[in-house]
Amino acid sequence: MEFQDEMRYTKDIIDQELDNLFKDQKGYQDRIFESIRYSLLSGGKRLRPILMLKVCQMFCDNYLKFIPYALAIEMIHTYSLIHDDLPAMDNDDFRRGKLTNHKVFGEALAILAGDGLLNLAFETMSNFALKDSETIEEYRRHLWAINEIAKFSGVFGMIGGQVVDLLSNEIHMDRDVLKFMYECKTSALIQACTVSGAILGGGSELDVERMKKFGLYLGLAYQIRDDILDIHEDKEIDKVTYLTFNELDKAKEEINRLSNKAIEILNYYDSNKVNFLKALTHKLINRTY
Amino acid sequence: MEFQDEMRYTKDIIDQELDNLFKDQKGYQDRIFESIRYSLLSGGKRLRPILMLKVCQMFCDNYLKFIPYALAIEMIHTYSLIHDDLPAMDNDDFRRGKLTNHKVFGEALAILAGDGLLNLAFETMSNFALKDSETIEEYRRHLWAINEIAKFSGVFGMIGGQVVDLLSNEIHMDRDVLKFMYECKTSALIQACTVSGAILGGGSELDVERMKKFGLYLGLAYQIRDDILDIHEDKEIDKVTYLTFNELDKAKEEINRLSNKAIEILNYYDSNKVNFLKALTHKLINRTY
Repeated sequence: MEFQDEMRYTKDIIDQELDNLFKDQKGYQDRIFESIRYSLLSGGKRLRPILMLKVCQMFCDNYLKFIPYALAIEMIHTYSLIHDDLPAMDNDDFRRGKLTNHKVFGEALAILAGDGLLNLAFETMSNFALKDSETIEEYRRHLWAINEIAKFSGVFGMIGGQVVDLLSNEIHMDRDVLKFMYECKTSALIQACTVSGAILGGGSELDVERMKKFGLYLGLAYQIRDDILDIHEDKEIDKVTYLTFNELDKAKEEINRLSNKAIEILNYYDSNKVNFLKALTHKLINRTY
Repeated sequence: MEFQDEMRYTKDIIDQELDNLFKDQKGYQDRIFESIRYSLLSGGKRLRPILMLKVCQMFCDNYLKFIPYALAIEMIHTYSLIHDDLPAMDNDDFRRGKLTNHKVFGEALAILAGDGLLNLAFETMSNFALKDSETIEEYRRHLWAINEIAKFSGVFGMIGGQVVDLLSNEIHMDRDVLKFMYECKTSALIQACTVSGAILGGGSELDVERMKKFGLYLGLAYQIRDDILDIHEDKEIDKVTYLTFNELDKAKEEINRLSNKAIEILNYYDSNKVNFLKALTHKLINRTY
């Protein structure tokens, strides 16, 4: 399949499965189902779940059965956006061209919808893990994947990065703090995808370590590309970014360096196994939106 | 051991373990460690983790090794309180005689501290589950317990109840809606304790079912007792409670009926196994604070 077709094929499956969540679900609490569906189905690119499934496919053929994990990662990503947009946080009225969750459902329900999504991620993974496991090895890999996803999304991962971002006006931001923030805020959830994909697909310890590095480099390159796109859009000029400490040329060089390191890791594997991921890497770091 | 001693012994262990969390932890994100510790160590009675461990003890002797689950349940309870207190929710300035989390750390950090605690609960459980499991049966019970805790604390459990509570001015509250709200908002997290305790301790499917009912009755009785205590304190008069639909005498009768049903379940077991839980049930439903 061509890259674009493969991308669309995977995205369609994910979109379909997300759309099934709480569909026609009734209950006294159904306003939260609406609120969750509103944000979950508001046109995300599904990069993270696609990445998770495609890394998984490197190591096994029946990778699509692990879709509950892909959904869980999208749930974690979505909850973090809902909470980020809140008035007490970034106070954003729009996301992806639509009103943010709290603008439609109110702040209180947006907080609960975020909590509900984070909780649902672990409910979804543990539910599937229980049903899917028969051997010790299967049980172990499921628990290992759940644990890695929890670590990458927690206070030593994504949430830790959000805290530093939040306090960036109070903390003296130097290159080290910025690097920490990018590793946590952006790379960590990407690593949750690449690492859980490798674990569930049956990769070795070495494979998992490699995919952890792949996610790290990809996430950092992605974030610096974001910084460059942001200056073109003239937004958030007062924010400390990679470009606070470096010229534009240096930033572009760094993106190339990081993406080369990401590609180097993929080169350990058969090229037919990693063609898609190489194309995705190029697409993400050269994107213009 | 006498009931009070046994209570204090268990509470001290839990308090000690909670105090070890993030102790002297350094990192650029350490303000969230402070914020989490502030709420986690602000004088909770630890009823839920004590209940979890004591139900576990009914079914096994080395119940104390499952303390990571007790901590995880307290983390879930604490995150729900931090988010409940937020200005957009109940807007409370004080809890347990201390300033609420957002009053001390600001709203944004309180939101992230809540998120961090919920995430940490699953990180803690999956971490321990991985280390503790050797046999298929051990793996299965860990995943089963994690899944039940996730379900009871999610949108079909505790969060679902909070949504109904939040919308109680918009929803027409009748007896059925109130019952649903109490089952979710209060009983569900109590059931997370009793069910996970039975699963981890090695109880049978029947034991788990019984403990699920025990938690349901205990939680409902606890909530109606709360309603009675609230009228004595003259607070939240405009809120719909059990007393909106029933006289005080009827409420007391209902508490007795529910606690008798809870005790009936405990009577299936050897009395020396359930003495503590019987005493705890009596204490909770007769409490005056």
